[in-house]
Amino acid sequence: MLLDHTAKGVFAIAATPFHPDGSLDLVSLERLTDFYLAAGVSGLTILGIMGEAHKLEPEESIAVARQVIARATVPVIVGVSAPGLAAMRSLAKSAMELGAAGVMIAPPSTLRTDDQIVTYYSQAVEAIGTDVPFAIQDYPLILNVVMSTNVIRTIVNNHSSCVMLKHEDWPGLEKISTLRALQKKGEMRDISILCGNGGLFLDFEGERGADGAMTGYAFPDMLTDLVRLQQSGERDLAHDLFGAHLPLLRYEQQQNIGLAVRKYVLQKRGAIAHDTQRKPGGALSGAGKAEVDYLLARLAKYDPRARRA
Amino acid sequence: MLLDHTAKGVFAIAATPFHPDGSLDLVSLERLTDFYLAAGVSGLTILGIMGEAHKLEPEESIAVARQVIARATVPVIVGVSAPGLAAMRSLAKSAMELGAAGVMIAPPSTLRTDDQIVTYYSQAVEAIGTDVPFAIQDYPLILNVVMSTNVIRTIVNNHSSCVMLKHEDWPGLEKISTLRALQKKGEMRDISILCGNGGLFLDFEGERGADGAMTGYAFPDMLTDLVRLQQSGERDLAHDLFGAHLPLLRYEQQQNIGLAVRKYVLQKRGAIAHDTQRKPGGALSGAGKAEVDYLLARLAKYDPRARRA
Amino acid sequence: MLLDHTAKGVFAIAATPFHPDGSLDLVSLERLTDFYLAAGVSGLTILGIMGEAHKLEPEESIAVARQVIARATVPVIVGVSAPGLAAMRSLAKSAMELGAAGVMIAPPSTLRTDDQIVTYYSQAVEAIGTDVPFAIQDYPLILNVVMSTNVIRTIVNNHSSCVMLKHEDWPGLEKISTLRALQKKGEMRDISILCGNGGLFLDFEGERGADGAMTGYAFPDMLTDLVRLQQSGERDLAHDLFGAHLPLLRYEQQQNIGLAVRKYVLQKRGAIAHDTQRKPGGALSGAGKAEVDYLLARLAKYDPRARRA
Amino acid sequence: MLLDHTAKGVFAIAATPFHPDGSLDLVSLERLTDFYLAAGVSGLTILGIMGEAHKLEPEESIAVARQVIARATVPVIVGVSAPGLAAMRSLAKSAMELGAAGVMIAPPSTLRTDDQIVTYYSQAVEAIGTDVPFAIQDYPLILNVVMSTNVIRTIVNNHSSCVMLKHEDWPGLEKISTLRALQKKGEMRDISILCGNGGLFLDFEGERGADGAMTGYAFPDMLTDLVRLQQSGERDLAHDLFGAHLPLLRYEQQQNIGLAVRKYVLQKRGAIAHDTQRKPGGALSGAGKAEVDYLLARLAKYDPRARRA
Repeated sequence: MLLDHTAKGVFAIAATPFHPDGSLDLVSLERLTDFYLAAGVSGLTILGIMGEAHKLEPEESIAVARQVIARATVPVIVGVSAPGLAAMRSLAKSAMELGAAGVMIAPPSTLRTDDQIVTYYSQAVEAIGTDVPFAIQDYPLILNVVMSTNVIRTIVNNHSSCVMLKHEDWPGLEKISTLRALQKKGEMRDISILCGNGGLFLDFEGERGADGAMTGYAFPDMLTDLVRLQQSGERDLAHDLFGAHLPLLRYEQQQNIGLAVRKYVLQKRGAIAHDTQRKPGGALSGAGKAEVDYLLARLAKYDPRARRA
Repeated sequence: MLLDHTAKGVFAIAATPFHPDGSLDLVSLERLTDFYLAAGVSGLTILGIMGEAHKLEPEESIAVARQVIARATVPVIVGVSAPGLAAMRSLAKSAMELGAAGVMIAPPSTLRTDDQIVTYYSQAVEAIGTDVPFAIQDYPLILNVVMSTNVIRTIVNNHSSCVMLKHEDWPGLEKISTLRALQKKGEMRDISILCGNGGLFLDFEGERGADGAMTGYAFPDMLTDLVRLQQSGERDLAHDLFGAHLPLLRYEQQQNIGLAVRKYVLQKRGAIAHDTQRKPGGALSGAGKAEVDYLLARLAKYDPRARRA
Repeated sequence: MLLDHTAKGVFAIAATPFHPDGSLDLVSLERLTDFYLAAGVSGLTILGIMGEAHKLEPEESIAVARQVIARATVPVIVGVSAPGLAAMRSLAKSAMELGAAGVMIAPPSTLRTDDQIVTYYSQAVEAIGTDVPFAIQDYPLILNVVMSTNVIRTIVNNHSSCVMLKHEDWPGLEKISTLRALQKKGEMRDISILCGNGGLFLDFEGERGADGAMTGYAFPDMLTDLVRLQQSGERDLAHDLFGAHLPLLRYEQQQNIGLAVRKYVLQKRGAIAHDTQRKPGGALSGAGKAEVDYLLARLAKYDPRARRA
Repeated sequence: MLLDHTAKGVFAIAATPFHPDGSLDLVSLERLTDFYLAAGVSGLTILGIMGEAHKLEPEESIAVARQVIARATVPVIVGVSAPGLAAMRSLAKSAMELGAAGVMIAPPSTLRTDDQIVTYYSQAVEAIGTDVPFAIQDYPLILNVVMSTNVIRTIVNNHSSCVMLKHEDWPGLEKISTLRALQKKGEMRDISILCGNGGLFLDFEGERGADGAMTGYAFPDMLTDLVRLQQSGERDLAHDLFGAHLPLLRYEQQQNIGLAVRKYVLQKRGAIAHDTQRKPGGALSGAGKAEVDYLLARLAKYDPRARRA
């Protein structure tokens, strides 16, 4: 089941659970996988930035991939971004052998010109093999690489194995419209566009032509509802749902401590046993936890799923 | 009426209105000043980043300052950040002579170490004079300078003329708590903390100890209501109001095109005649305008002030 | 006498002399202008980064431009880079009215994609007028903007008023070769390429096709000799001269304190009365001055001009 | 034989040799190790940036470390910088078990404030263990982290296992003087300071108090001569030697293509079989190689060791 450009819906960015001592919590990983599946996701993305991939040792990455892929009944994308192409090739090879649907590649933060970015993706494709479907991660706020629509078009047209864009530019609504227009004019191959950036503009991204979401908000069940409402044309209901969640979603979309918020809520919802992050990681203060609790209580008036949290 | 550490409430970041040909629109500037005053602001901040200060020629900056200060019945802070200290001194001198209450200074984006930041503010104070009250602008997302609480404390303690922090770090809630704790322990002089960053965390910033807001959201009347509700302890009502505005507020808080959104709404609300920005400036597409209109229509169900927009 | 693509030789980046109290030293400016002319320069570039342009007030910039242009018998290029296009237009207009041969424009450090850079230069040309000859400043180390050869080609081909590249990419030798190859193939209009970056690769830049130097090394008389030797094919002699100066030239090419070294040597050579920089500026310690003195003494064995310094 | 603060002389930054197909060339690695030893180095540093460490898979890093440590008769420092602390701990543990003298840690490029840098080194020490001697790598030009002398002092004083600074700030001479003054005043524990940055200021760094060099210039035999001359007070001879090498040394100290130059010269000198770099890596054009050959030929007139190259 390889990834292709028809992918749509919600691909949850999976957290990686740890025990309080920092070791991998594979029991929670199983529970978390089930949690995402029960939320109705169309796919999972593991070993991304929010999956703390860069804090794992290679054999741990393999262990996470093996378990999630084995358990999931949906396509699994594996993040293979690495400082060097050798490590990327190695991880991509392992992931595909384990049954991954494809991989995701973020650009290294030193890239600046259009040419540099395009060249990097050519080298990456050479490294992982032209038969491995991949998603571009376009996240300038964190990755510090700015991709113009022209650069994305070039990468897509250069590599038939490029089937997806994880869109998280900010601001990014016009980018979606521009890319879809390029497709319509036949100037760019069709790709799937799933939106990240914590979901902060998900209310309009679908309306602009995105195929869904790829983010890790601790309510993936809300994300799947939202995308369903959008795709069935229930615009006002979609915005109602989004608006009710926005205060919490916005709170979760903070640099450094955002993952602490997310793991705290996932723990409250019973999806993982501990909200531990591997070091170095941002922590949530007592005041911060109280704020999240208050937001959950407010949300529960609208969305009963927040009551259990 | 000089600025001091007791400043509180809402200091609106004033836009600078232009005619469609790019020339200053001083008639709109008068109307806009009145609009902010009618919204109940406690002060105004002019010639900041969102006031397109860097696109003005020196004599235009003076003209804007002269007119706003003359008309306003509240303290006016003038942004004097400049590539060189000579220009900063010159603008600060003019502003204070015109009756400004104080100035605001953002650090140049080349500063990196704690020492460099502290030294820069010492040089800036030497340039503008130790008798001119000033606010530090702490906005890493845009300015690319990260100030630790220790750096802020050192600047505050070094300079008795430092009376205010424009707080717009992200994430920043803990920073407010830490600074207030430093004050309480007597390790930092008292300062006013007003929050910017588009107001995206204003629901909690007041609860953490901020004295109010300094931002340019196109509904300054909502900001003054919000701060009033917070200060009178009506927590749930404050969050209700904030939550209703958050979808639009979030939409306005986008890099590059955020000012286009803000001017579009200010124009719709009758506060300025044209939504023109000086070049270079981000523009709002037709789709973008329609999205803002939709958000305004949704908001109007909760807040009737959005109906007129 | 307008600048065009045939410009060659040495355009000295002129320092701006100050009195010890930080005020403009116009007497020294006259002496310095004569010093450059006596060194055989083909042109002068004023109000660049090393001319501390960003520390001058607008009327001071005009005063400097007026005096240098009036006294110089060679073309004068005026740096007009500014945070906003209004200030750029205003300074360019004044400079051309005073008799400047053209202007130089550096990109603002926020530009990232190829499109952003190309668009910025279009807006700048619109601001200054299509009849004002200009040079692109390509200095990634300081300006933080990386221009591919394709971007430079596009700017050159878009604007017939673009007649020169101040080349100071690092590493940059291949860039010169590539640009010259583009010209030869007819894919880019002819431009003058003058090299900066402190002259650190000037021994090879001429051999790669550059037309000369645009830098502020305190021995402009060496630069003119070097370019003359290169252009007359005396390769070994050119490298001998360059090698003798390289230890000092390298010492002068240090961020922050490089200008302190340059002004110290210019003062020793009698070209300016004081080595004062406006604040903020890097200072040379006693140990640093002793090192420069030692390098000058060593250089004097090869190049007698260093004796007077 | 653990590293301590008395380390001095030249620690060569070792290249990692590859076969033309990109696989590790362990035969060349042996030859290269012998080459450095024959040059009289006091130590070796492997798996640094210039050792292409980030392009190696973990087991390859171990293989390189094992072989070099086994063969070398001098202390070997192993670079263990990694995106996450888990990988750092794991590599440090392996390296020390194999007999490394210590490790080197570069800060991740996201660190900004003094506190962030200090905290990172505390976490790193916790990860590798307090008994593993380590060197701080202070290389802002590449790593994008600026460490004040105060930050370095704090790290040194916090961790007795911090025994060395790889100094490659630019400009950096005053930093050495300041650190040595802090030691003299008893405000900082004694550490070894070895200088990198391609050796571009090595002529003065020893005079300022550095203990030697840690860089990978393709003439390590020149570096050991230079340090010896400096330490025996033969100042002029030291500068003569340095000046003769400076044109080539400067040519090698170019971002991206510098390693291509270095490997090209190492190959010509017989130290490695191929000048291959793993992708992605900068290549030297034909013109570039001819320039290096020319510089070698010029150098050979002064230093016969360049003849064999």
